[in-house]
Amino acid sequence: MQKKKKKVQSGDMSQQAIALHKKLGGKVRMVSAMRVRSKKDLSRIYTPGVAAVSTMIAGDPNKAREYTIKGKMVAVISDGSAVLGLGNIGPLGALPVMEGKAALFKTFAGVDAMPIVIDVPQRIRAARQQERVDFLVETICAIAPAFGGINLEDIAAPVCFEVERRVIDMLDIPVMHDDQHGTAIVVLAGLINALTVVNKRMDSVRVVISGAGAAGTAIAKLLHAAGAQRIIVLDSRGCIDVSRPEHHKRDLATFTNPEGITGGLREALRGADVLIGVSGPGLATCEDIACMAERAIVFAMANPIPEIMPDEAQKGGAMVVGTGRSDFPNQINNSLAFPGIFRGALDYGVRIITPDMKLAVARAIAGLIKKPTADKIVPDMFDTRVVRAVACAVGACATGNT
Amino acid sequence: MQKKKKKVQSGDMSQQAIALHKKLGGKVRMVSAMRVRSKKDLSRIYTPGVAAVSTMIAGDPNKAREYTIKGKMVAVISDGSAVLGLGNIGPLGALPVMEGKAALFKTFAGVDAMPIVIDVPQRIRAARQQERVDFLVETICAIAPAFGGINLEDIAAPVCFEVERRVIDMLDIPVMHDDQHGTAIVVLAGLINALTVVNKRMDSVRVVISGAGAAGTAIAKLLHAAGAQRIIVLDSRGCIDVSRPEHHKRDLATFTNPEGITGGLREALRGADVLIGVSGPGLATCEDIACMAERAIVFAMANPIPEIMPDEAQKGGAMVVGTGRSDFPNQINNSLAFPGIFRGALDYGVRIITPDMKLAVARAIAGLIKKPTADKIVPDMFDTRVVRAVACAVGACATGNT
Repeated sequence: MQKKKKKVQSGDMSQQAIALHKKLGGKVRMVSAMRVRSKKDLSRIYTPGVAAVSTMIAGDPNKAREYTIKGKMVAVISDGSAVLGLGNIGPLGALPVMEGKAALFKTFAGVDAMPIVIDVPQRIRAARQQERVDFLVETICAIAPAFGGINLEDIAAPVCFEVERRVIDMLDIPVMHDDQHGTAIVVLAGLINALTVVNKRMDSVRVVISGAGAAGTAIAKLLHAAGAQRIIVLDSRGCIDVSRPEHHKRDLATFTNPEGITGGLREALRGADVLIGVSGPGLATCEDIACMAERAIVFAMANPIPEIMPDEAQKGGAMVVGTGRSDFPNQINNSLAFPGIFRGALDYGVRIITPDMKLAVARAIAGLIKKPTADKIVPDMFDTRVVRAVACAVGACATGNT
Repeated sequence: MQKKKKKVQSGDMSQQAIALHKKLGGKVRMVSAMRVRSKKDLSRIYTPGVAAVSTMIAGDPNKAREYTIKGKMVAVISDGSAVLGLGNIGPLGALPVMEGKAALFKTFAGVDAMPIVIDVPQRIRAARQQERVDFLVETICAIAPAFGGINLEDIAAPVCFEVERRVIDMLDIPVMHDDQHGTAIVVLAGLINALTVVNKRMDSVRVVISGAGAAGTAIAKLLHAAGAQRIIVLDSRGCIDVSRPEHHKRDLATFTNPEGITGGLREALRGADVLIGVSGPGLATCEDIACMAERAIVFAMANPIPEIMPDEAQKGGAMVVGTGRSDFPNQINNSLAFPGIFRGALDYGVRIITPDMKLAVARAIAGLIKKPTADKIVPDMFDTRVVRAVACAVGACATGNT
């Protein structure tokens, strides 16, 4: 009965969302920063006056941050290859998601954000993966000058890893693939407080991450940087070890699974303290959770249908449960991180989002919950302290004032 | 004395423009189309609700125009290779101009417009021109999905011609290089009314176009389409004939200079009825104008310093004089055309801006001046009838209702 009700609600939600999108016809608008009412206004914002500004910037490109939208505007860029849980639905399918993200950038952090979706040409879609990487890197770098930061979004693994790395190397503005790092930061924030609730320590818990895509990979790296020693990452073929053909999975194996556990989710979960699901709906059962250690923590983040529903996880013995959904407690959602990260990066002139910043941001988000409980490990997305705390954490790292 | 005063004013204008740009820090802002106040709002504009919209669009890409910014948003794209009269100052130097244009799009036509500047990589800048064409075409097409139209801007000739042609071929949205067609349309509008003032006919006047770049080429083509039979185009080497190495100049020679005139500006102007300057400051003298036919028309459009100052042109005997500047009568400015053209294209689902549309738009602009005089051949840019008349002309052509 419960399940049916959820399904009906979800159908309603789809209809509501479609109706709202039709009414809005796009979720962001571009407006002029000043009212243009006279020829004098025109001659200052456009020709002939603008020539002086263009000449000045051509002579000193650093001035662009001060005199143009480069100081304010972030690009939210996707190739549509891994959109939500919908997979490779292409650039137009991705556009509503990028627009939503741009609307959240403005809503939560006052950051101007432009949705950009990249249409990868057929000849490159048909070619090797490396061609797609090269194409995305070249396109993103080509259009970068107008932007003060780039939020990469919904780009499939493993292409996303090399694209992000190379774009960071090539540009002098902050670039972050949010599916990786935004997710990892908020997971770490939630985990810090969940560990307090269950009274366990980061350096001793065994953490099982189900999913070795963009999110799973970044979570493993950030938790490791935060002190987690016993991490096991699984993909659809089970626990990851160095025998995997994919480069990023072999890389994961170098710092995970020190106990050499083999097998599938059930084997990995036996005695584990934390399950982080970033894979797909319904992958875990009540019985799986029952194999875990006492006072287990379960973050089941597949969206909209989690790896395991919260009531099932609790039935299996989990003490703290989080999901990606707004209709359950403990919503582990990127929106807690990305708006403030780019707000801080723009405000403090940050050119690279460093690992230290990611840790500092996670701790800052966690720190907003003074007394974590099983039902409250992360702040609400509408908590106005969040963006400020995140932006300040970024700024403190940037200025060495940590 | 007059000259000195102008110079001081121009210095003031530069300082004012720089101060205003510093205050604004970018001339456009992205805003959310709706206030996001609750988790329910979030779940409709972002996950999970947005998944239904993405799925729908992935299944029927035509729906993007209705449900996303694609129905509203125009990209204003430049590679910074021919910015105003400043030349190849690069993408960051071009950005203030593209922002200004985006602000005008909103101000005059309510069109959302995103400034995009393209950084052509060093290896391509160093290569043959064809490489630049290929790179621009590929980059523009790659980022096109989010946009309902593309205004190309400040791209140098001859690269601009092939880029525009190929991007039009590849995309199903309206694409227009404004330096070519916006300029040509407004010149034609002005010329239609100027010919009324001087009581001459389009099909019998001799028209001299000084400048064979983007604007000069497009003006020649549009005036020819409007019935002008005797057009002479000059570049820095004089009257253009079929011996020129550049493809677009040989192409011009096929329908211009039927009398086979040779030499420079002075030779071309002897007995000519119309001079259209789209070349550079101070190229024509009072004596040059004095060689023209009675009741000559002079559009000296180099900006900010025209080919000849209006008082000099009048001294030489010109009856109607236009410039690109707002501080003289008869400002022949693209802003009369591009906002309404894209407004109309978006409103009527136009996929190609056809030659017929360009003619119709020019006639619509000219038609707003009921009784043209030597000092009033085009409407004021702030005349609110302009955008409506232009958009309607586009729509009438699109629907075959001309």
